[in-house]
Amino acid sequence: MSRHLTLGPGREFDAVRDLLARWGTAATGVGDDAAVLDVPTGSRLVVSTDSSVEEVHFRAEWLTPEEIGWRATMAALSDLAAMGATPLGVLLALTVPVRWRGSLGAVAEGVGAAVRAQGAAIVGGDVTDGDRLALTITVLGHAPQPLSRAGARAGDTLYLTGALGGPGAALAAWMSGGVPNAAARARFAHPEARIAAGQWLAGHGATAAIDLSDGLSGDVAHLAHASGMRCTIALDAVPCVAGVSALEALVSGEEYELLVAAPSLDVNAFSAAHGGLALTAIGQVQAPAFGRGAEVVGEQGGVRVELPRAHDHFASVR
Amino acid sequence: MSRHLTLGPGREFDAVRDLLARWGTAATGVGDDAAVLDVPTGSRLVVSTDSSVEEVHFRAEWLTPEEIGWRATMAALSDLAAMGATPLGVLLALTVPVRWRGSLGAVAEGVGAAVRAQGAAIVGGDVTDGDRLALTITVLGHAPQPLSRAGARAGDTLYLTGALGGPGAALAAWMSGGVPNAAARARFAHPEARIAAGQWLAGHGATAAIDLSDGLSGDVAHLAHASGMRCTIALDAVPCVAGVSALEALVSGEEYELLVAAPSLDVNAFSAAHGGLALTAIGQVQAPAFGRGAEVVGEQGGVRVELPRAHDHFASVR
Repeated sequence: MSRHLTLGPGREFDAVRDLLARWGTAATGVGDDAAVLDVPTGSRLVVSTDSSVEEVHFRAEWLTPEEIGWRATMAALSDLAAMGATPLGVLLALTVPVRWRGSLGAVAEGVGAAVRAQGAAIVGGDVTDGDRLALTITVLGHAPQPLSRAGARAGDTLYLTGALGGPGAALAAWMSGGVPNAAARARFAHPEARIAAGQWLAGHGATAAIDLSDGLSGDVAHLAHASGMRCTIALDAVPCVAGVSALEALVSGEEYELLVAAPSLDVNAFSAAHGGLALTAIGQVQAPAFGRGAEVVGEQGGVRVELPRAHDHFASVR
Repeated sequence: MSRHLTLGPGREFDAVRDLLARWGTAATGVGDDAAVLDVPTGSRLVVSTDSSVEEVHFRAEWLTPEEIGWRATMAALSDLAAMGATPLGVLLALTVPVRWRGSLGAVAEGVGAAVRAQGAAIVGGDVTDGDRLALTITVLGHAPQPLSRAGARAGDTLYLTGALGGPGAALAAWMSGGVPNAAARARFAHPEARIAAGQWLAGHGATAAIDLSDGLSGDVAHLAHASGMRCTIALDAVPCVAGVSALEALVSGEEYELLVAAPSLDVNAFSAAHGGLALTAIGQVQAPAFGRGAEVVGEQGGVRVELPRAHDHFASVR
């Protein structure tokens, strides 16, 4: 049995054959109408889809083709991390303008590298023509008890992985015609889905989790509304990268760090198990105040502060 | 427990809330980072992704917004039909240009209607800005023993569901500035994924199957190459819609009929079980001739004929 089916003749299939050759062992079983996978017994299937579109999520001049592929793949895999899931497979739908055909192989290398880095496999895809490069990546994973945004309980502490503000600083530099510093650029161009962290957190009592794609300000609101709770964020406790304020860090999107609620977590044990990645208590979960619904409150120096507005995906980077 | 998580504030989430309201029971569990599904015990997971892009797969003036949504969804579900799989869930990634925002609800109605017609559910999605309307639809299904393109055996007969040529005739009329007849237009605008047919065929001895998205000429080549077999198509046996020749029908893409190989099938029992849908023997599977690889041969009136070239997805409808 070959790892892939043999495809018939045609220009589209030549492109697919080239991609498969580049991916090597990162792709398995491509070429039938659909891919066949097995979910381990006792596990539930976890699925999500995520698009990365030129001029919406990135500009061609900001990133190498490999980085475009890596970043889109890690962004999609980040949703599995938020559920505490183990990756099973990735489906890649590519829209490729004529001007991008020469770089398609390099984009594919980035996808393959990200998939390999997280122990996943490319199991299917689709290639079409279009005006802008777009990668729509569907991720499949499994978990015995997937984490949800909806499970946070009164008394839980809110924890955050890593430090925020890098992608926002990189975007701000680019949008104002400048060049981001190397650290901020790397956070934008080369994110890491917190897959292992998500599994650890799910196994150590996390009650709810979300990945920071819209930015902390927006994503904590999703968690609060889904859980029906009041969430307080202590701005002074939010870890920020150098040169970024807490208020800037709160609206920095596409961070792909995890925000989790849990009764109590050993932050040192977490960090030791994840190559020094920080886990920081940044807030609290309470029952909503009498007569009020779910809400998010910021606190700085003991004073209540308004949190800035969340990132809006209908606002593009053009 | 609500069927969906409560989303936080924001324009993107208002759009999602509107879609969920329109879909009603056709959508379940949307709003977390990823959807959670269960694959029935004893079944394997079957997954595929498929894009439908304005100016590549359709023009806005050819179809109503509802038809665009219906057609894209059925096209994606057709890959499950080809595997003999039962739909489990659908993920929808939408790229929505500003000029399309007013029609987004109607597109979503079409997606919801197709999903309901096949007993599936919308379990997740993504909405982004872009220049062209694009729907990337990932379908999840399950089957105890999914059909593959690769299982055809020497001695099998090739069977085809339905009659070919409608979508090709509609496209030809539009591309030459005309208007297709109602029957041809309906075949293009309102295809049906052959889900029930695929399950029946898988349960009655089919050894290999493929859905006709590229057209019979191209898709029989995929089946032949995947199976390592020589496939002969009897052109006079291919059922064509009125006014379409067999050679035209062979390159009519996006038919979403099924081509299957099987030792022997009761075509009358099939038709009775599927509301009169035809199942027709149109060819044979043989071991490749000595010294030759997989190939496809056309035959008409006892004479070997060259099959026309397959549909190329890098050729757009512009």
